[in-house]
Amino acid sequence: MAKIKNDLFLRTLTGESVERPPVWLMRQAGRILPQYRAIRSSLSGFKELLFTPALAAEVTVQPVDELGVDAAIIFSDILVIPECMGLDYDMVEKKGPLFNKTIQSKADADALLSGAEAAVKLEYVFEAIRLTKELLDDRVPLIGFSGAPWTLLAYMVEGSGSKTFSKAKKLLYKDPDLAHQLLAAITDTTISYLKLKIKNGVNAIQLFDSWAGILTPELYDTFAAPYLAKIASGITEVPVIVFAKGAWFSFEKLAQMDCQALGVDWNISPEFARSAAGSKILQGNLDPCQLYAPEAQIESQTRAMLDRFGKGHIANLGHGVYPDTPLNGVKTYVNTVKNYNYNS
Amino acid sequence: MAKIKNDLFLRTLTGESVERPPVWLMRQAGRILPQYRAIRSSLSGFKELLFTPALAAEVTVQPVDELGVDAAIIFSDILVIPECMGLDYDMVEKKGPLFNKTIQSKADADALLSGAEAAVKLEYVFEAIRLTKELLDDRVPLIGFSGAPWTLLAYMVEGSGSKTFSKAKKLLYKDPDLAHQLLAAITDTTISYLKLKIKNGVNAIQLFDSWAGILTPELYDTFAAPYLAKIASGITEVPVIVFAKGAWFSFEKLAQMDCQALGVDWNISPEFARSAAGSKILQGNLDPCQLYAPEAQIESQTRAMLDRFGKGHIANLGHGVYPDTPLNGVKTYVNTVKNYNYNS
Repeated sequence: MAKIKNDLFLRTLTGESVERPPVWLMRQAGRILPQYRAIRSSLSGFKELLFTPALAAEVTVQPVDELGVDAAIIFSDILVIPECMGLDYDMVEKKGPLFNKTIQSKADADALLSGAEAAVKLEYVFEAIRLTKELLDDRVPLIGFSGAPWTLLAYMVEGSGSKTFSKAKKLLYKDPDLAHQLLAAITDTTISYLKLKIKNGVNAIQLFDSWAGILTPELYDTFAAPYLAKIASGITEVPVIVFAKGAWFSFEKLAQMDCQALGVDWNISPEFARSAAGSKILQGNLDPCQLYAPEAQIESQTRAMLDRFGKGHIANLGHGVYPDTPLNGVKTYVNTVKNYNYNS
Repeated sequence: MAKIKNDLFLRTLTGESVERPPVWLMRQAGRILPQYRAIRSSLSGFKELLFTPALAAEVTVQPVDELGVDAAIIFSDILVIPECMGLDYDMVEKKGPLFNKTIQSKADADALLSGAEAAVKLEYVFEAIRLTKELLDDRVPLIGFSGAPWTLLAYMVEGSGSKTFSKAKKLLYKDPDLAHQLLAAITDTTISYLKLKIKNGVNAIQLFDSWAGILTPELYDTFAAPYLAKIASGITEVPVIVFAKGAWFSFEKLAQMDCQALGVDWNISPEFARSAAGSKILQGNLDPCQLYAPEAQIESQTRAMLDRFGKGHIANLGHGVYPDTPLNGVKTYVNTVKNYNYNS
């Protein structure tokens, strides 16, 4: 593999002592960029962009060009896994995903594809990765990602987003065997999928457990953490970042996983994260709403955050950037990190 | 005031050593009860029930009759405060509240009523309290409640429910002076309102900071906790319970407030709560989804929770009971607590 010119992100993940933290933003390839909105408005919807590798590659590279971030993340969706397993969904404007069928019984789960057989169906993602690598020309590393098994199960059972995901949680309480069967199938598929992503060129993996925070500590230990751990241990080729939003109660256990870094949401203070995670690399955690503030305030708050995390840190937000964030706010954030120096 | 026959809830709140924990459920006066659904289906909507004191009183007492809980909580809504200050709202079926106008400027905030002048407009709530006290005939105590200032500001600025409340949070970052002006007005109104509730008969107060969990620790310390503390200190007539959902990061500070008990959501373990809250009474925290489980499992999990909290505990869920919870599950929960004994 060719040497990546700006490899600050990867050097940080391997624990090397670096001059400043690398910076990227969750959802950086999205509506904050006028270039993205221009492409998106010419299409029928989100899924057309997802299914068109040349366009997915183009929007993946946009934030590298426009913002100068230290890593790209492939434009895709966590729900490609349920879809390749046999559950297709629509992305409804302003509402979110809506599945045409859901998992309610063992028969439903038995009917799913899984493992490599399912993962190979995601050729459009792999092609987008190859095209992105060409466009990036090794300027910065490319991150691949996947949803964590619990978060994917939540959508597959609930059928849509939800404030409580009470149908999905009900399954954990009422039919734990079926839940484990589903989680195992999702885990196998995810490992196959991520290995194919790596083979096609991604340089790091981030796992998103977006709905971690609606579980109790006991449910998280039983139905979420073990499957995340299996994926983290299964991916040995590139560094793995685990971001379990809202799972402060399991932060110490997450830090024991065989991964290189932990994502930190904005509820967690840098001090709490550091004391729970030991020497693990931490990624986060500015409140996305902070980027609505005046630029001088963004600068001072960003520097304060970098000071508090100290070394072993990847600068990011505590969640995906909100679509209506002013572009200048985002740039101020990125530039403040890029002008920071651990030694001054 | 007449002696309340079952005063276990109040004795627990005053720190008395009791034989078992008292039990009630957030949203117990609601769709889980067939009696409630019967009344609700004869009405045009939620707000008709809210505005009709005789019916509000009737549904408040239903869970005492049907479930045998140790406390009633007046059927009402946290959004009566914005409404009496001048912002009316509709409760849209399956969507939640929708305000007809919102606070976007100092002029909007200046135009609001506040304090006693606003609170006296809530006579329909006070009448519901008086009627409830008649129906209860001192069988169990009656809880009054209010939303915490931050949570009410969130609705008044956002105008509806939201996953992120990013408009409301944006105000905190962009115009902290306006945010503080609004929070002070809400706080004054709330204190007046709660004192009138107490004058009309409620025996305890619960403050709901439902959206605490979307703030950073710093925002919570600046814009939420001080106003909650002011209300808690202002209410000296009856015990006060503070429930700040998702504010695990401030749990230790909340415990310093001048209140009698802290609500505990289901993300927080009893051990974490106890170690952060010292000898404060704790209220919670079974996962509402646990009540979907088979009854034997509800029983064993409820007992395990009671064992873990130990004395100084009021049994409740970690959030409001979900509307589709089986009535038998709820009854199993309540009866398990009532059959528990600290001394056996």
